[in-house]
Amino acid sequence: MSKTFTAQNPATGQAVGAEIAEWDLVQTSAAIKAAESVKAKLASTNPTQRAALLNAIADAIEADKEKLADTAHLETALPMPRLTGEVMRTVIQIRAFANLVKTGGHLLPIIDLADPNFLPVARPDLRKSQQPLGVVAVFAASNFPLAFSVAGVDTASALAAGCPVIAKAHPSHPNTCQAVYEAVVKGLTSQGFPKELFAIVQGVSPEITHWLAKAPEITAIGFTGSGLVGKLLIKLAGERDIPIPVYAEMGSLNPVFFTPGALSEKADELAKAAVDSALLGSGQFCTKPGIMVVSNDAAGDKFIAQVQSYLSQQKVPPLLNKGIANRFKEAITSLSKSKGLKVITGIANDDGFGVTPNIFVVDWADVKNHDDLLEEHFGPTSVIIRAPFDQYLTIAKAMAGQLGAALHVQAGENVKELVNQLTQLAGRIIWNGFPTAVSVTAAQNHGGQWPASSTHTTSVGLDALYRFVRPVVYQNFPENQLPAELQNSNPYGIERIVNGQRSNTAI
Amino acid sequence: MSKTFTAQNPATGQAVGAEIAEWDLVQTSAAIKAAESVKAKLASTNPTQRAALLNAIADAIEADKEKLADTAHLETALPMPRLTGEVMRTVIQIRAFANLVKTGGHLLPIIDLADPNFLPVARPDLRKSQQPLGVVAVFAASNFPLAFSVAGVDTASALAAGCPVIAKAHPSHPNTCQAVYEAVVKGLTSQGFPKELFAIVQGVSPEITHWLAKAPEITAIGFTGSGLVGKLLIKLAGERDIPIPVYAEMGSLNPVFFTPGALSEKADELAKAAVDSALLGSGQFCTKPGIMVVSNDAAGDKFIAQVQSYLSQQKVPPLLNKGIANRFKEAITSLSKSKGLKVITGIANDDGFGVTPNIFVVDWADVKNHDDLLEEHFGPTSVIIRAPFDQYLTIAKAMAGQLGAALHVQAGENVKELVNQLTQLAGRIIWNGFPTAVSVTAAQNHGGQWPASSTHTTSVGLDALYRFVRPVVYQNFPENQLPAELQNSNPYGIERIVNGQRSNTAI
Repeated sequence: MSKTFTAQNPATGQAVGAEIAEWDLVQTSAAIKAAESVKAKLASTNPTQRAALLNAIADAIEADKEKLADTAHLETALPMPRLTGEVMRTVIQIRAFANLVKTGGHLLPIIDLADPNFLPVARPDLRKSQQPLGVVAVFAASNFPLAFSVAGVDTASALAAGCPVIAKAHPSHPNTCQAVYEAVVKGLTSQGFPKELFAIVQGVSPEITHWLAKAPEITAIGFTGSGLVGKLLIKLAGERDIPIPVYAEMGSLNPVFFTPGALSEKADELAKAAVDSALLGSGQFCTKPGIMVVSNDAAGDKFIAQVQSYLSQQKVPPLLNKGIANRFKEAITSLSKSKGLKVITGIANDDGFGVTPNIFVVDWADVKNHDDLLEEHFGPTSVIIRAPFDQYLTIAKAMAGQLGAALHVQAGENVKELVNQLTQLAGRIIWNGFPTAVSVTAAQNHGGQWPASSTHTTSVGLDALYRFVRPVVYQNFPENQLPAELQNSNPYGIERIVNGQRSNTAI
Repeated sequence: MSKTFTAQNPATGQAVGAEIAEWDLVQTSAAIKAAESVKAKLASTNPTQRAALLNAIADAIEADKEKLADTAHLETALPMPRLTGEVMRTVIQIRAFANLVKTGGHLLPIIDLADPNFLPVARPDLRKSQQPLGVVAVFAASNFPLAFSVAGVDTASALAAGCPVIAKAHPSHPNTCQAVYEAVVKGLTSQGFPKELFAIVQGVSPEITHWLAKAPEITAIGFTGSGLVGKLLIKLAGERDIPIPVYAEMGSLNPVFFTPGALSEKADELAKAAVDSALLGSGQFCTKPGIMVVSNDAAGDKFIAQVQSYLSQQKVPPLLNKGIANRFKEAITSLSKSKGLKVITGIANDDGFGVTPNIFVVDWADVKNHDDLLEEHFGPTSVIIRAPFDQYLTIAKAMAGQLGAALHVQAGENVKELVNQLTQLAGRIIWNGFPTAVSVTAAQNHGGQWPASSTHTTSVGLDALYRFVRPVVYQNFPENQLPAELQNSNPYGIERIVNGQRSNTAI
């Protein structure tokens, strides 16, 4: 008898959906080996075919958008508008990769023709492009049951790179994962690809993490989640006979700095927007502003007063699962005991995995008494640090790596040094805005310094693809033995760099 | 009293040059902190200034080319023409990075303008470019006392990226390192930069490796050397509070496959070329063909006979240091005991750290009896594996990751599957050539699968720069707060991607 588990509706705490069979090691290994055995079918596609496949997968997900949003709503209690939006984000980001792949740009073809006069010695004909790594393991995140889950950005970018994907379904939304899986398979088979190119592993056992990280056929790992699991994956990946890269996003505080000028201009407006950003998705965004730095002057006092008044009217949907809710409550209890801490609360949600929003206010001088204040706490909370403006740089220097950091600044204020410091910590710096909401676009970067990210890469935006390819150069190859993207005739008609010049013509 | 050590002339085994003072932890830490404290002076340069700096360093090295080659000759016993060539390669590769940096291309600027109609939600203004990591530790290699040493490719690419460098001088050529250091400092100061942007740490103590890898100011490591030290660096870097990337190249067998057709066409010519390639630099190239796969037919027999006859006339210069020579002799002794092994020898060199070239011939069926045969042995040796052509793919599949792999093929022979398999192992595949000699150019890739390389990056060619930068995106920043490369006015006049289109004009 195989074990089973059942999803829970966070709004009620009750079981929802069918019983899900827990995968064992044999099934997991078989799925990985099956993916490995057909990887060439995906790797050998030309840009048009691969783009068509991605678009077919996007179409299949879009076709099921109502069902997916409904299923996710029951398992996550996230609001329906958020979930219907998230289905479309999932679809749009897969199509964005299709658009990139169609141009052949992801192959980064660089051709340096033979040059007998090259110095210091004659140069042979060298032609480089990017090749897919092989089977990739993706770990679904709890907080974006579609856009960062089994067919989220990691999967989309890996498939776009030409890599089969084995995704660990998230046990908080297993039926959503299953429904997305079925849509992806529909997309694969509609284009004549074997369904083994994609699989999801269902289960609650922590052993699954080990099975995936240790499988010899797995060539890279994409992960969004806790530092605990991220660091475990890095350890396991490093202990393999052949270590593999782990692209882990492991949480972030995303500090927001409010200058005295900005606060004097619009303390009320900023306070409301700050609370909204902190409570978005019940505070379960990796880009949540977990720290806000506010001047200890009258304008700052006004900001705090407005946070208090506004938060007192706020209630948020329940958290994603029981573990998250319990850890949130424990953290709030622990933080509340910090010396000199003021606690501001919102409206309690007593249903299911509901919690009460809490925002803390503390003087910078007291932060050192409670290390927890500079750590991420998943859920509807944030820490407001009061400090004189001339201490902001010191605060920024005391912080660990972050995904994002934001500043609210009045025109004419000098924040050059603060911005410079924030670029040392974070991968995205926001001016007069909040870190929540991340566009999926070429210029995007959703990665930051350790411990926010394990590498200097991004999981959001087109550059995410390059995590799953590696360069191979062909030296002095005859035309008919070269990959098509490197042949003189340029059969794909793609842009290449030839002897340092961009060209989309034949050589 | 500080400790000292002295270089040895491999041709005599005798001390050469002045006594060198061994650095201690205090000096090393001070140099790292000094580099960190001035890093902004380099990071803040515009493309023109940084290119000028790199060219000034190249000029200073070129100005000392005779002195550098003479010094290196005394410490390495490598032939003078090789060393004068290597000085120029060092100069040329620094200038190649200057040419890249001058275009601003290394900043990879991508601008996506705000778009209220972007889906699924409005897009803010997003502008991304690449920022230097900070102080980089570089470990000089023994086998290229200039081109892979303290001002070799790792240093050149790190400085080009805008990172100060602390280089571990190689104790086998410390006076060369010192002379190069002085040239680099001349280049730095001639352009008004603080000399603290570059330092070399001298010494024979294994502790230096730990000091550099653990220093909190070090942000990345460039390494070319043994798997033992490379793996130690990866371990140390992973144990830090803030782990850092280690770009390690740790040796490679660079297999060369000779098809029956190629051998039937020109066994004699190929045999001589193969021996020349294996003995180049006394077999101390990371691209040395350490494995040659030869068909077990009459053409293969002819190849072996020619190897035997040609090698019997070959004598090579002494190895780079006593340790390398001793390890080589031990490996040869151990390998010679393998079952079914035939040993072909060249002319003994009894001077200093001289050794006798040895090439082994073994049947594929016997390779499994001696694991050592599929490992790298630094020095003038190679293993010829005899096998039927239909076993070549199996042999390739049994191999670990490699920097390069080569094939000699007769027109019309089908080697598609073999080539595909080699691209899974190696970062460079050579057709009808040998893996030694690596052009420094944009299309180059000098990296391969583990254990040849620790990451999917290259240490040779222009892409080496991207190991030492990370992306930062600026969201909704006002023009005057943006880095110059991202400002609307495009003050550097560089090529950027704006809303998906390449452009070198203002926005």
